[in-house]
Amino acid sequence: MIKHALSVTRAQNFAEWYQTVIAEADMAEESGVRGCMVMRPWGYGIWERMQRLIDDRIRTLGYDNTYFPLFIPLSYFEKEAEHVEGFAKEMAVVTHHRLIPDGKGGLVPDPAAKLEEPLIVRPTSETVIGAAFARWIQSWRDLPVQINQWANVVRWEMRTRMFLRTSEFLWQEGHAAYASAEQAKAETAKALELYRSFAEECVAMPVIAGEKPENERFPGAVETWSIEAMMQDGKALQAGTSHFLGTHFAEAQNIRFQNTEGQFEPANTISWGMSTRMVGGLIMTHGDDDGLRVPPQVAPWQIVIVPMLRDNDEDAALIDYCSGLRDELVKQSAFGEPLRVLLDLKATKATTKRWNWIKKGAPIVIEVGGRDMAGGNVSLIRRDALYREDGKLDSAVVAKNDCVAQSAATLAEIQHGLYTQAKLRLDGNIATDVTDMDGLKAFFADSVEKPGWVLAQWSKPTGAALDKVEEQLKALKLTLRNTPRDAAPADGTCIFTGAPAVERVLIARAY
Amino acid sequence: MIKHALSVTRAQNFAEWYQTVIAEADMAEESGVRGCMVMRPWGYGIWERMQRLIDDRIRTLGYDNTYFPLFIPLSYFEKEAEHVEGFAKEMAVVTHHRLIPDGKGGLVPDPAAKLEEPLIVRPTSETVIGAAFARWIQSWRDLPVQINQWANVVRWEMRTRMFLRTSEFLWQEGHAAYASAEQAKAETAKALELYRSFAEECVAMPVIAGEKPENERFPGAVETWSIEAMMQDGKALQAGTSHFLGTHFAEAQNIRFQNTEGQFEPANTISWGMSTRMVGGLIMTHGDDDGLRVPPQVAPWQIVIVPMLRDNDEDAALIDYCSGLRDELVKQSAFGEPLRVLLDLKATKATTKRWNWIKKGAPIVIEVGGRDMAGGNVSLIRRDALYREDGKLDSAVVAKNDCVAQSAATLAEIQHGLYTQAKLRLDGNIATDVTDMDGLKAFFADSVEKPGWVLAQWSKPTGAALDKVEEQLKALKLTLRNTPRDAAPADGTCIFTGAPAVERVLIARAY
Repeated sequence: MIKHALSVTRAQNFAEWYQTVIAEADMAEESGVRGCMVMRPWGYGIWERMQRLIDDRIRTLGYDNTYFPLFIPLSYFEKEAEHVEGFAKEMAVVTHHRLIPDGKGGLVPDPAAKLEEPLIVRPTSETVIGAAFARWIQSWRDLPVQINQWANVVRWEMRTRMFLRTSEFLWQEGHAAYASAEQAKAETAKALELYRSFAEECVAMPVIAGEKPENERFPGAVETWSIEAMMQDGKALQAGTSHFLGTHFAEAQNIRFQNTEGQFEPANTISWGMSTRMVGGLIMTHGDDDGLRVPPQVAPWQIVIVPMLRDNDEDAALIDYCSGLRDELVKQSAFGEPLRVLLDLKATKATTKRWNWIKKGAPIVIEVGGRDMAGGNVSLIRRDALYREDGKLDSAVVAKNDCVAQSAATLAEIQHGLYTQAKLRLDGNIATDVTDMDGLKAFFADSVEKPGWVLAQWSKPTGAALDKVEEQLKALKLTLRNTPRDAAPADGTCIFTGAPAVERVLIARAY
Repeated sequence: MIKHALSVTRAQNFAEWYQTVIAEADMAEESGVRGCMVMRPWGYGIWERMQRLIDDRIRTLGYDNTYFPLFIPLSYFEKEAEHVEGFAKEMAVVTHHRLIPDGKGGLVPDPAAKLEEPLIVRPTSETVIGAAFARWIQSWRDLPVQINQWANVVRWEMRTRMFLRTSEFLWQEGHAAYASAEQAKAETAKALELYRSFAEECVAMPVIAGEKPENERFPGAVETWSIEAMMQDGKALQAGTSHFLGTHFAEAQNIRFQNTEGQFEPANTISWGMSTRMVGGLIMTHGDDDGLRVPPQVAPWQIVIVPMLRDNDEDAALIDYCSGLRDELVKQSAFGEPLRVLLDLKATKATTKRWNWIKKGAPIVIEVGGRDMAGGNVSLIRRDALYREDGKLDSAVVAKNDCVAQSAATLAEIQHGLYTQAKLRLDGNIATDVTDMDGLKAFFADSVEKPGWVLAQWSKPTGAALDKVEEQLKALKLTLRNTPRDAAPADGTCIFTGAPAVERVLIARAY
């Protein structure tokens, strides 16, 4: 029996395990502010890596970065509320701009500094960016406009969970306007494909890309597309969305252009977003009972060197040896970038450091003791293959030169291995043979530990018929995830109605 | 007489010229939200370049990036308000978390969703980061803690000016805790030096680094240090500050550690920040009557290629020729990074594009027409040397291969030239021979167009004596900027009191 590093395993209690990983890997912590977390260096560092990699891809699509105000006047939402069914109203409202002493040693909002019009902390920026588009766009020559923003947004949440659902979160939001619906749809698909490739290639997180059913659309959207990932407890996580908004927002916001024939017409707009939620997805995709495992492409440090210092005269030579190793390693490249290597010289016991880095999920931990140094060697631990068959920690003595020469290939192997593991899990846990509601109930029965997902055939009901489907699923704690872009055509009957099916839809429990 | 690209010159009206540059260079615009601006791609792109270069330097100092909540509970400020004289209270206050229909077609904050404790939109993060430090720091082994945050902050401003003073702005804030006051002071100085080197090397903006007098300190700080830059109208701009906070914040927030002897003592903390204000400084340092001039190190595009398209059959060949040029140029490196080169294929007339890029201040604009292509040439415009002696635009025909080979050297030359120009202006406009108040009045008399600064000797008065000095200066619209770190020792008498001087202090009008 292996004694694992965490106090709780995935099998014992997945939700508690998730919180334990975040705490033990020093990723984030409660802030004292309701629903908001502090992202510590390791958690924020992973997000920064994601940002860098997403940002590069966004630029390749021809988008420019911009920054719009945090505050949006209430009236902008009144216009949208009129226009959009299902408009969400849980938002942080700024009503005053000054504090004054309350006469009892405390502070209160100054009644004399009440805002004439309350300001809303942005929950998303369609309204304020649409207003700018209306100013910027006059002629077909001005199109397309394609901009992106990295920002914090706030949606007041009653039940929060770190990274997955927080009142404040960080994200990127892409917004663009095009002359034709065809082009806008094509660009909506490109953004979705960007998310798929980023998730799979960088986060090693396989996903299913597809269109959300009508009841799950972004309010005001004509089409909403998503990528869905399978967590290790079998639940689905929506990890990115891309919306084709048609001319709905353009008409409400007067985003019009004069076409080549001189006629005015509304632009077709799109928007798409991905957030710090992706870090939660990473944890629940790759974490194990010893903590996090970070795919090398998004690891703040890919290799951590821990010298086994003993507070004696040999320490200086050991540090020299390790510095030399670090200098060699950072000359290597993996994934088109120089390796990110930390020499950990903190005043902590070496075995404590080892386990801290294992819990944080650094892809490779290199320990160097006096004996290693004497032999020109290092002791290497791979986070993706922590234990030998006999259950002991697999620390392999490797010649220093070989370690340097193989470092990039080993990181590539770890990245690929994490993806393959997750891909096997995803593919192996989607049932395609469930054809009626009884089968669905059995598949998701409470006695089944990790049911996975069902890819069912359906007749794509709309309106009231879809509402009924939603209700049936809700009773089973299930939701429709998306209709996969790459699914086989339908050839059977609808799981809900028995009518001829027109496509396939994913059904799952979800975060 | 040169006919310049802007409708107003610096000499005519500096404030209006500043707004005109921002508008004509498409850097930013009013957002419809009081005191908040929209940063458009060119303005935000410059900030992103600054971010990248500052961030690299911050990591070199051993800081880790983190993210703390946007909202800070009111009670945190009550604690600080007790503790800190001069606590600023102009802050955005969130009081509700939901909107409901008002029954008249509008929305209002839901009275049932009033927060028990109001939340403040962070004006700076000492309080919430200090609370985290108190959790993280137990022993000398935990020190130093050095973290940085890139964030938006809000300070309610009555009079705003784009980039220089906006209610919401973007910045980085460094926060650190150390065991000893000596170390904390040394690190405060390192942060200041980081700002100096960044401003001078990357933004080509010479600055004077020094300590703020006691009346200009950050509330609660023991020492506040700043870098001050001279704008082209002679006014000073404080472009970055670094604070040694002693144990003041640590005592209020209970940031204590057990030292090597087992005794508990408060940590010594520091904080330091630089903001989007730096973009305003760049404009007022390098802009001219044709628009902005961006130093190559912080230019989003360093070279812009404009093909002179004529909507005919030759266009395809011209675009090919220009694409080839772009591909050659991006293989070159300047300042340790590949060149940033844009091939501008927008559907706009070539001369309009030329002037747009001149107004934006791209360091090099390369125009390519049919004749250029036929001769294997390009026409090159340097933004730092726009006109020939006869007043005509200086567009030089250069062999394409030479243009590629010289590109990096030319960018380095432009970077250096902009710095030298600004440095000459700074050095040439600091008077050191003003020794009494009459001299000071004459130097800053309203009839003097661009007075520059006075570096005066003073006796470093404190308390009420300093208040009196401040009042005298205020009547002349003057402020004390800092006591330069690198100034010569005092050898005369105090400009204010006639007493023996102890050091030198900068006096200036300021933004």
